[in-house]
Amino acid sequence: MPIVVVVGDGQLARMMHTEAIELGLHMRLLAGSEDASAAQVYSDVRLGDYHKLEDLREVVRGASAVTFDHEHVPNEHLEQLLDEHVLVEPRPSALLYAQDKLAQRRKLEELGLPVPAYAAIDSVDAARAFWEQHEHRVCLKTTRGGYDGKGVWFPDSQGELLDLVEDLLGRGMELYAEEKVDFVRELSIMVARSRSGEMRVWPVVESRQDNGICRVAIAPAPDLPSRLARECKKLARLIARKLDVTGVMAVELFEYKTETGTAVSINELAMRPHNTGHWTQDGSLTSQFEQHLRAVLDWPLGETETVAPVTVMVNVLGGEEDPEMSMENRVKEVMLRYPEAKIHLYGKSWRPGRKIGHVNVTGYDVVTTRKIAEHAAKYLITARWN
Amino acid sequence: MPIVVVVGDGQLARMMHTEAIELGLHMRLLAGSEDASAAQVYSDVRLGDYHKLEDLREVVRGASAVTFDHEHVPNEHLEQLLDEHVLVEPRPSALLYAQDKLAQRRKLEELGLPVPAYAAIDSVDAARAFWEQHEHRVCLKTTRGGYDGKGVWFPDSQGELLDLVEDLLGRGMELYAEEKVDFVRELSIMVARSRSGEMRVWPVVESRQDNGICRVAIAPAPDLPSRLARECKKLARLIARKLDVTGVMAVELFEYKTETGTAVSINELAMRPHNTGHWTQDGSLTSQFEQHLRAVLDWPLGETETVAPVTVMVNVLGGEEDPEMSMENRVKEVMLRYPEAKIHLYGKSWRPGRKIGHVNVTGYDVVTTRKIAEHAAKYLITARWN
Repeated sequence: MPIVVVVGDGQLARMMHTEAIELGLHMRLLAGSEDASAAQVYSDVRLGDYHKLEDLREVVRGASAVTFDHEHVPNEHLEQLLDEHVLVEPRPSALLYAQDKLAQRRKLEELGLPVPAYAAIDSVDAARAFWEQHEHRVCLKTTRGGYDGKGVWFPDSQGELLDLVEDLLGRGMELYAEEKVDFVRELSIMVARSRSGEMRVWPVVESRQDNGICRVAIAPAPDLPSRLARECKKLARLIARKLDVTGVMAVELFEYKTETGTAVSINELAMRPHNTGHWTQDGSLTSQFEQHLRAVLDWPLGETETVAPVTVMVNVLGGEEDPEMSMENRVKEVMLRYPEAKIHLYGKSWRPGRKIGHVNVTGYDVVTTRKIAEHAAKYLITARWN
Repeated sequence: MPIVVVVGDGQLARMMHTEAIELGLHMRLLAGSEDASAAQVYSDVRLGDYHKLEDLREVVRGASAVTFDHEHVPNEHLEQLLDEHVLVEPRPSALLYAQDKLAQRRKLEELGLPVPAYAAIDSVDAARAFWEQHEHRVCLKTTRGGYDGKGVWFPDSQGELLDLVEDLLGRGMELYAEEKVDFVRELSIMVARSRSGEMRVWPVVESRQDNGICRVAIAPAPDLPSRLARECKKLARLIARKLDVTGVMAVELFEYKTETGTAVSINELAMRPHNTGHWTQDGSLTSQFEQHLRAVLDWPLGETETVAPVTVMVNVLGGEEDPEMSMENRVKEVMLRYPEAKIHLYGKSWRPGRKIGHVNVTGYDVVTTRKIAEHAAKYLITARWN
């Protein structure tokens, strides 16, 4: 059975191991530290730095495939590994569009796909021009390295925007501006694609964000017109194919009002398992983590059907303070009250806003199911029921 | 979060780790060898011998609970650990009834539960007397150490029985005889119980055995009269309570014809996750492995509801020969044909009859679902579709 190398030691790598055990795979991890979330549970852990080609070369020896739990490995290293006949999945040529958001915008526009109005911001003048076109509705972003609300700014005035741009450009950042979409809600769709070109999509999910961090995902997205669901699926498949994506990819979307109903516009791409896909662990026949491994190995993909009418995922994000009650006792309290809640923890210590786990609940109606998941996650954070 | 120590390095310990990762537990394994099924996937592996008290003492240091993937740890060692305030779950006082089948029979009879007629066989005379009472329907068993059809004999004649008894007693074995039950099928019910006394049962399962090895489990057991299902559940709960079982326990049963319908009689107890409970990984809200960990930690137990009308589990048992095609290619072939099949592999090499994995399939009707699971498992064994 093959060896799969995962670069990156967070919860996504951790949850890949869960599925790999059952599939009989041998997993090897390149971790930055011994106590990182994934390093705690892998049997084969190599400590190293993913910025260093020699560390990457060392860890990939004998691997059938190399994949990632983040998008920050330097692309030139990945190109080098490919030249040395290492199967890097997804390929750097695809990863580029998850790493560089301006390149992504350009590519999606070129494919004729719906994206918000945008422009590269390489000068204060460019920022002024964009603000004048899209007054009060401008969002400024770094092209690289942003995540979970980091690297995104929402200036309230032209002055604020121009000051920001001057400051950030001065610090050597690459920037672009985007028209702030007045959305009714955010959606996400996950697609898996293997090197052979097989694709599978999961149902479209509604996602709720707080300060740019995913907090809730509801699968399938309630009351989504079937026309729009079909459009999202088509769009995800098209992007996966045109960008030659392998593994799983999340397409985050804005749903916004039009004169005749609603439409979608693309917010972000992530080429790896994604927070809005965690519900699949308990709500779908094949989880995103199993599917990712199958896809990067070019194995046939699994059925993505749901196992319940609705699944709600709520993140456990470190609260303002760490409650005195131990996490074990919080878990016990939640299990006692909600024997149907599926608690997933990442082995991470508390820090305000840090993703330390999530709760999945399957059920029959959105309101009840969501209430249980929210309630359970809140208790894990605060150690209080109300 | 607590540390759980598992003694025993087979697939049951391996599949406990799968669930432990998501629960955020720290798992430590006492393994006999580095390449054992569970040792391949645990991050914290101690090599040692479970027959040696000093190895057990070493591995349990700092653990919140100690549990097992088999029943062969000497009970005097477990008693000693208990004296040293180590939480051994299940307790040796309960494990005794899974280790010593004659003690089990006596205990179940004392509780007024249905067991086949039996007798201790400590002499050829005792065997002759039992044969005369139950002519042609005698099964001879060792009281300890039997599993998967080992330690069980079905003599065809009195002469064969008496020869066997003389031989086995001469080799120092403890024996008992049992009336061979003329059953219509075998059933199994799994129950989980925590130290606090909370209990949960899963639906009764029909199990098919070949030469004493479980091959197929169908959950729930088709066409089981609801009166009988209730009786099985009551019986499992009663045994768990009266024997002070902690963790999960399988009660294997014979269903046999009576004048008015069918009834059940107890075949075996196993105080650990069990082959007839593997279906719960994909067919129940809480798998037997998660539940076992929750129970031995005295955490509240999870909901045992099914997620599909029927789940079929078929074992992947090493065939007469090991096909030339690699296991990876067999897996790919099955995945291509049956994207809904859930393949679980144990990282074990081939040996005829050896349990190397299983396939779970959920579905709407028994015939189709079973056909897919059988077909998939057969291909994994033979690399041939027919």
